[in-house]
Amino acid sequence: MAQIVTFGEVLMRLCPPGFARFEQAKQFNVTYAGGEANVSSALAYWGHHTAHVTRFPDSPIGRAAAHYLRYHGVDISHIQYGGERIGVYYLETGAALRPSQIVYDRFHSSFAELDPKALDWHTILKDATWFHWAGITPALSQAAADACLDAIRTARELGITVSGDIFYRSNLWKYGKQPSEVLGELTAGTDLVVASPVILRDIFGVEGNSFEESCVNLKKVFPQVSRVVDTHRTSLSASHNLLRASLWNGQQVLETENLEINPIIDRVGGGDAFIAGLIHGLLRFDDEQRALEFGVAASALKHTIEGDALISTEAEVEAIRQGETSGRIKR
Amino acid sequence: MAQIVTFGEVLMRLCPPGFARFEQAKQFNVTYAGGEANVSSALAYWGHHTAHVTRFPDSPIGRAAAHYLRYHGVDISHIQYGGERIGVYYLETGAALRPSQIVYDRFHSSFAELDPKALDWHTILKDATWFHWAGITPALSQAAADACLDAIRTARELGITVSGDIFYRSNLWKYGKQPSEVLGELTAGTDLVVASPVILRDIFGVEGNSFEESCVNLKKVFPQVSRVVDTHRTSLSASHNLLRASLWNGQQVLETENLEINPIIDRVGGGDAFIAGLIHGLLRFDDEQRALEFGVAASALKHTIEGDALISTEAEVEAIRQGETSGRIKR
Amino acid sequence: MAQIVTFGEVLMRLCPPGFARFEQAKQFNVTYAGGEANVSSALAYWGHHTAHVTRFPDSPIGRAAAHYLRYHGVDISHIQYGGERIGVYYLETGAALRPSQIVYDRFHSSFAELDPKALDWHTILKDATWFHWAGITPALSQAAADACLDAIRTARELGITVSGDIFYRSNLWKYGKQPSEVLGELTAGTDLVVASPVILRDIFGVEGNSFEESCVNLKKVFPQVSRVVDTHRTSLSASHNLLRASLWNGQQVLETENLEINPIIDRVGGGDAFIAGLIHGLLRFDDEQRALEFGVAASALKHTIEGDALISTEAEVEAIRQGETSGRIKR
Amino acid sequence: MAQIVTFGEVLMRLCPPGFARFEQAKQFNVTYAGGEANVSSALAYWGHHTAHVTRFPDSPIGRAAAHYLRYHGVDISHIQYGGERIGVYYLETGAALRPSQIVYDRFHSSFAELDPKALDWHTILKDATWFHWAGITPALSQAAADACLDAIRTARELGITVSGDIFYRSNLWKYGKQPSEVLGELTAGTDLVVASPVILRDIFGVEGNSFEESCVNLKKVFPQVSRVVDTHRTSLSASHNLLRASLWNGQQVLETENLEINPIIDRVGGGDAFIAGLIHGLLRFDDEQRALEFGVAASALKHTIEGDALISTEAEVEAIRQGETSGRIKR
Amino acid sequence: MAQIVTFGEVLMRLCPPGFARFEQAKQFNVTYAGGEANVSSALAYWGHHTAHVTRFPDSPIGRAAAHYLRYHGVDISHIQYGGERIGVYYLETGAALRPSQIVYDRFHSSFAELDPKALDWHTILKDATWFHWAGITPALSQAAADACLDAIRTARELGITVSGDIFYRSNLWKYGKQPSEVLGELTAGTDLVVASPVILRDIFGVEGNSFEESCVNLKKVFPQVSRVVDTHRTSLSASHNLLRASLWNGQQVLETENLEINPIIDRVGGGDAFIAGLIHGLLRFDDEQRALEFGVAASALKHTIEGDALISTEAEVEAIRQGETSGRIKR
Amino acid sequence: MAQIVTFGEVLMRLCPPGFARFEQAKQFNVTYAGGEANVSSALAYWGHHTAHVTRFPDSPIGRAAAHYLRYHGVDISHIQYGGERIGVYYLETGAALRPSQIVYDRFHSSFAELDPKALDWHTILKDATWFHWAGITPALSQAAADACLDAIRTARELGITVSGDIFYRSNLWKYGKQPSEVLGELTAGTDLVVASPVILRDIFGVEGNSFEESCVNLKKVFPQVSRVVDTHRTSLSASHNLLRASLWNGQQVLETENLEINPIIDRVGGGDAFIAGLIHGLLRFDDEQRALEFGVAASALKHTIEGDALISTEAEVEAIRQGETSGRIKR
Repeated sequence: MAQIVTFGEVLMRLCPPGFARFEQAKQFNVTYAGGEANVSSALAYWGHHTAHVTRFPDSPIGRAAAHYLRYHGVDISHIQYGGERIGVYYLETGAALRPSQIVYDRFHSSFAELDPKALDWHTILKDATWFHWAGITPALSQAAADACLDAIRTARELGITVSGDIFYRSNLWKYGKQPSEVLGELTAGTDLVVASPVILRDIFGVEGNSFEESCVNLKKVFPQVSRVVDTHRTSLSASHNLLRASLWNGQQVLETENLEINPIIDRVGGGDAFIAGLIHGLLRFDDEQRALEFGVAASALKHTIEGDALISTEAEVEAIRQGETSGRIKR
Repeated sequence: MAQIVTFGEVLMRLCPPGFARFEQAKQFNVTYAGGEANVSSALAYWGHHTAHVTRFPDSPIGRAAAHYLRYHGVDISHIQYGGERIGVYYLETGAALRPSQIVYDRFHSSFAELDPKALDWHTILKDATWFHWAGITPALSQAAADACLDAIRTARELGITVSGDIFYRSNLWKYGKQPSEVLGELTAGTDLVVASPVILRDIFGVEGNSFEESCVNLKKVFPQVSRVVDTHRTSLSASHNLLRASLWNGQQVLETENLEINPIIDRVGGGDAFIAGLIHGLLRFDDEQRALEFGVAASALKHTIEGDALISTEAEVEAIRQGETSGRIKR
Repeated sequence: MAQIVTFGEVLMRLCPPGFARFEQAKQFNVTYAGGEANVSSALAYWGHHTAHVTRFPDSPIGRAAAHYLRYHGVDISHIQYGGERIGVYYLETGAALRPSQIVYDRFHSSFAELDPKALDWHTILKDATWFHWAGITPALSQAAADACLDAIRTARELGITVSGDIFYRSNLWKYGKQPSEVLGELTAGTDLVVASPVILRDIFGVEGNSFEESCVNLKKVFPQVSRVVDTHRTSLSASHNLLRASLWNGQQVLETENLEINPIIDRVGGGDAFIAGLIHGLLRFDDEQRALEFGVAASALKHTIEGDALISTEAEVEAIRQGETSGRIKR
Repeated sequence: MAQIVTFGEVLMRLCPPGFARFEQAKQFNVTYAGGEANVSSALAYWGHHTAHVTRFPDSPIGRAAAHYLRYHGVDISHIQYGGERIGVYYLETGAALRPSQIVYDRFHSSFAELDPKALDWHTILKDATWFHWAGITPALSQAAADACLDAIRTARELGITVSGDIFYRSNLWKYGKQPSEVLGELTAGTDLVVASPVILRDIFGVEGNSFEESCVNLKKVFPQVSRVVDTHRTSLSASHNLLRASLWNGQQVLETENLEINPIIDRVGGGDAFIAGLIHGLLRFDDEQRALEFGVAASALKHTIEGDALISTEAEVEAIRQGETSGRIKR
Repeated sequence: MAQIVTFGEVLMRLCPPGFARFEQAKQFNVTYAGGEANVSSALAYWGHHTAHVTRFPDSPIGRAAAHYLRYHGVDISHIQYGGERIGVYYLETGAALRPSQIVYDRFHSSFAELDPKALDWHTILKDATWFHWAGITPALSQAAADACLDAIRTARELGITVSGDIFYRSNLWKYGKQPSEVLGELTAGTDLVVASPVILRDIFGVEGNSFEESCVNLKKVFPQVSRVVDTHRTSLSASHNLLRASLWNGQQVLETENLEINPIIDRVGGGDAFIAGLIHGLLRFDDEQRALEFGVAASALKHTIEGDALISTEAEVEAIRQGETSGRIKR
Repeated sequence: MAQIVTFGEVLMRLCPPGFARFEQAKQFNVTYAGGEANVSSALAYWGHHTAHVTRFPDSPIGRAAAHYLRYHGVDISHIQYGGERIGVYYLETGAALRPSQIVYDRFHSSFAELDPKALDWHTILKDATWFHWAGITPALSQAAADACLDAIRTARELGITVSGDIFYRSNLWKYGKQPSEVLGELTAGTDLVVASPVILRDIFGVEGNSFEESCVNLKKVFPQVSRVVDTHRTSLSASHNLLRASLWNGQQVLETENLEINPIIDRVGGGDAFIAGLIHGLLRFDDEQRALEFGVAASALKHTIEGDALISTEAEVEAIRQGETSGRIKR
């Protein structure tokens, strides 16, 4: 019954409280997060029926992770259980000129070792109108890449809009495939691409002297692509950023103003909140400019919230989109 | 024996730690606060004998609230016990472009259902030189309004200075009376009025093209009023504000410079700290300008302290008033 | 076997969590810290074998303090046990225009009452190349001053470089000696002096119209001194500072650019981190300018870390030195 | 789609950490709980599809409460939003000879002021096989009593098994009705009654010289009743209890052995866990004795878990039922 | 105006959370406590006007200590400020066969260095009916002993009942006086003595083959003594104790039954709670047996409460005295 | 320079605070622990120079783990860095009839993938008198088994006493070797074997009608074995255990009395503390009975301390050994 389906790994996030360094930590705050699941949870808070598809170990830890998604309102009925472990990422929160730091421990995860045949995408996507994936998934394992491709192809068959957050992490991709090849197949089935010109050039060899030119050239390679979006972050310090975004819709490039965030409470998940906001905007408003702005507002708001997930109402995001950034108390 | 007596409701304040949203909270920090009690506690830290008059349920929770005021040095011997419940307010702390948010659950409180006859204001105010009330009280119930009027009239009889923080919350006032009528009676007995021109116009229909003109016109309606003060907040974000204030003394308008607060630790109670500082200044200094500046300094300092209450020494406030805002460590 | 040896008192640091005032604290965060020990621990994280020499009570509290240093990698084998108590300092963390506040309770400490004869400096310094002391030590007691002088003289005999952080706290020095006299003897054996022209004038009567002139004149009095360094802090608020430093090397004055820290997480220990960074730079780089910049970068980084100790890698400090202050997440 | 539907108020539970008294609390642990919702959440962890029906204020606090149930796996799609407030209960945890203490603040709640007509029980109960209510609901308000009666009648129409936890709190029942009359109507439609002989006598005037005789006499009044269960607690101290239960099935009385709990971590919700365990047992096992034992084991296990909710697997409860109470580590 | 006046040192108590050892502590829970002040605070909760006389440093730490007593309801208007420091005691909480451990750091305290002349006992004791002291005070310094003797003599003059908790700590008494001599003078003015036969023999050389005989012989030396009480603790483990007490009233020995405490939450202050309960009982009940039982019940209850202070109502203690030790939840 | 060298994996231990279940945990307490490292750290607190040999990832997390051992006083200079990850174990703390629960995530760890050739055991063991290993190590990987065998053979060459804690976990041993074969080679070089008759039978096929007979038969297979020890735990509940031990010394079986632990604070590491205590006893006392009792006392004490590591003085253990288990406060 889900309208929006997302697919991807969910990691345990272990984060020393406050600004403590790893060496100082006697406790970790624990949440469970993944880029695509973050999209689902943000959208669930705005009233969409969303489902996330992933795989967890069949253990109390795996169940805790699933229950965490359920708490955010995400449908967990398609999650699979099995395999060895949940991947972990350790996050140290920076401040001022000290950057935040992430240490991954994600290999051999239940998700990476999933069985693509166990996922019946026709059933999962039956009532969906949108499917979202990200570039991390095909980097993890052949199985994850295969399952992602199955999902995209099924979505195409069923006429479901597909969005993909395309990026490349050189320290993954250890199973022998070329990123360009694998990501190409996935992008070929995608309507809305989230990527920067640098990414498009590095992965697909798509060149361009401007964002628009890169987009036009991308569409020559992948004709299914109808929109490309990119976000721009000005990082003045670990505590102070500016955010804006661009959207190419096949005809023109739309731009937003910068939003200022100072201080940043938790920067992780900001990109996912942008995507969630953009999807929400495209589904709800007949106005791409407004949808893009909603995405940036959602992303900015995420920076003020602890954890990867954007917990917010539509009205809160819309207020920021309309320029209410003075922070006056709401009673 | 109290020199300064304040009267008003005290609520339990429940606040998720750090910047957590309500949906994330597994714990609430608990304090007990109310605008008028905040004035009493700030003044107690500066050496005044202050007493707060209110009503709590006769339960461990009510006693905990009373003991909290006692801890701040406020005389609790005139507090009454009875009724159903203590009102509650939930506070979520904002940051950057995310505003703080307050959810009230204050109806049917022990205070709102107090018995005005149970309060013997001649005894309570016997040794007092100042009485302070606020516009929230008469909005809660007829009983609260009646008790407030009794107090003001008794203060007038005893020659005690009366200050009133006048404002209007449209979501209260549910017991059938017109705010203008009730607040008018109370203001008629008040010497020092804290209010903005907008409030004066909205409640009393007092117009004016300037703060001064509004004040002059207010005095025509309420001749007892000898001073009117107003504060001005520039809200750059939930974390960054500027503060200044104006005082009309019947002859001229005094103004202060802006004080900058960045970052804000806890904005709630800032207005009460201003009033406490102003009262202290008027009682201790023969200099209205200094008193006004002391009020603004007290308010700014409050923004850096967790909880509604301003915990400070007179010297700390005075240092800020004199421009020591560099934050160098004190040893 | 230690390369770098530091000597000085270590205090228990008791700090209310977050921004709580002392009156609000129901808990204290506890660490153990001292200026010279902070130098040792920062250097230990960068791979130096460092040992700190001090004295603790022979109690679980004294052992906890020693184990805390050990946790940071400092060699504790020369620590002595005995005496009455560990000194304590209470730290309240300020924000915006509210300064941090320190209350000392350090008299009668095990360190102040040490027996200088119990310290065999020839053994302690056997393999050392650097010895560091600070001006607080001779202020505490005759015994502490004597031990410090013994250490410096032994270092001179053994050809070990000596650095001294010279300052004067008027509320110490209660045992009857003149600071100028005692500090003069110690400075006479010191190669690298950390001090401002104001300090040099107040303690030694060394005048100068510029930092350089003061340094030249200092060397006339203390010919052993080959380098003088000074740090400059611009304190915009308790949360926002700028930092830079100067080094006179007998021939010229080297200067660094300002580094901006906003927000400050914990300012205490910033000066010690500077000294540690400078020592590291002088030992590892054949470039005084780079060493000075490394010191300022280390100091700035310290301001973003809870506790007195700088917990960092050399690479982290070097990145800041090279201008990477944008705070982008490290993965 | 829910198999098991429960109906009743959910309160915010505020509990000082550890064993702190209310007067000592600077923080409250917050969960959301109610007897009937506790039954739903325990059953959800054992794989049943459960839904809870209640009413929350339409505020972030109301949503937080709903999300809390969702986190436990309870279907929240039938929850209604509106009204003034969520009821609160304050819980102080006792130890040894100091009892735990509960202070209620539950009047005027959104639930008590629900609109019975807004609940379409035919839809809610469409796929259900079991409906559970408790005696607290009809005590709160006429509206709550009416809605409960509607639910029971609809369940009867649809052939759904009905269980009721019947008890009487004299400090409720303030809306004018006689408990005996209201509870009688509800009990008349109930299959499985949870009650002690004392309760049956006090409310319904049903006498008996033994549990069995009381049950037989109850059935004469309410012929629909097919089973009566009662639990027996031996309270040696606030930290040490024994638990057992009896079930009358129309023919005989089944009994369990005592289970010992020492120390008790959190006693609240123990009765609800018993009911959940019993329902689970009756639905899954063809063995009333085993079902009763499963209920007692579930209740005992609940006493070792913080919060009102029993978070457990079926296997964990079953192990205790089979006598594995040695507490050996599970790896 | 205080009815009951207590005199003695108040220490900062620093306690690792839970069962952490000192070496593990990253935080200390902080309270302020002293045996005599504990008597005052327990009595204040039962409605007595109590005042504690002590001396704190004139610092935020000293004020925090005073405010802590004020929070418990103790009149702090006679507290003096000055001197160097507040004494500290570190408390590690044991469990099972691991004992709790206390490390003192109390020398050179503001209290020990008080000026006896600064205390005007005629004013302090003006309205008092009871004065309480303990044997730790004269052990600290000549000044403390002198002040204690002044207080007792003034109490005698004013006809005030005097109680003294007499014990001997060999690791104190460093200022040159013999305990027997000093404690003898103080005991000579005391009506109610708390002491064991061992203490009476060790300090005063008073022998006896039974508690009664020791008491009779004590009265021969100190005729003013009209009652002697002693408590008996059976320590089965750090978590499990039994408590009872004996009272000699000049004619006979009254005894109580044992009360069992398992588990113990915080054992410190148990003796002070006994004394408070006994004083309360003697003042309120015309029944020495009941007063003695009330003392033991108060002491047992204290063992279940965190911190040195007994926070309780009279009704809670009375319920335990009457045998309600089953720990059933109070609603 | 280490006297005692231990070898084995160290895991990150993640434990929900208090008695929270995994599903409830918003925070994990983090420590680093492993059976053999626990032996080293306990011995370090008693004054031995101990070194632990293991392998961590070259990351801040790996360094945090190493620093944690250093904090306990363990020499970390032989630790190797490299590989993918640190193994993790999740620990949920049980109470009463709810068992504690451990979930492992230890595959693919840096330790399991160590390079046996990288460990120069002649250097590591140069000054050692004792080497300790455990049966978990050879179960992890061929590399770990090889390194363990190298260590034991080198120890034999150098005349170092070898102890081995032999057990078998069926869910490990995934790399293809038979436990009996691998453990046999290791046991052949071991002097002191920790094992139960059941283990000896299951792994080595060594039978016996009594502990003594099993030991005699074991020696026939492995003549190097001179002592066998076994511990006996009576688990009354997760909170209440009894402990005793037996030692066969080639001639007779020594036994200890039971020690009772109630309540248990943290049971994990209890076996390692026993081994540490036994080794200490054998090295320090010329009395095997006393050594065995010291081991049991150390183990019992560990059960009262949070974390895997026994933090204690020799005097504390000795006091328990001598029967001081009444838990009276130590001052």
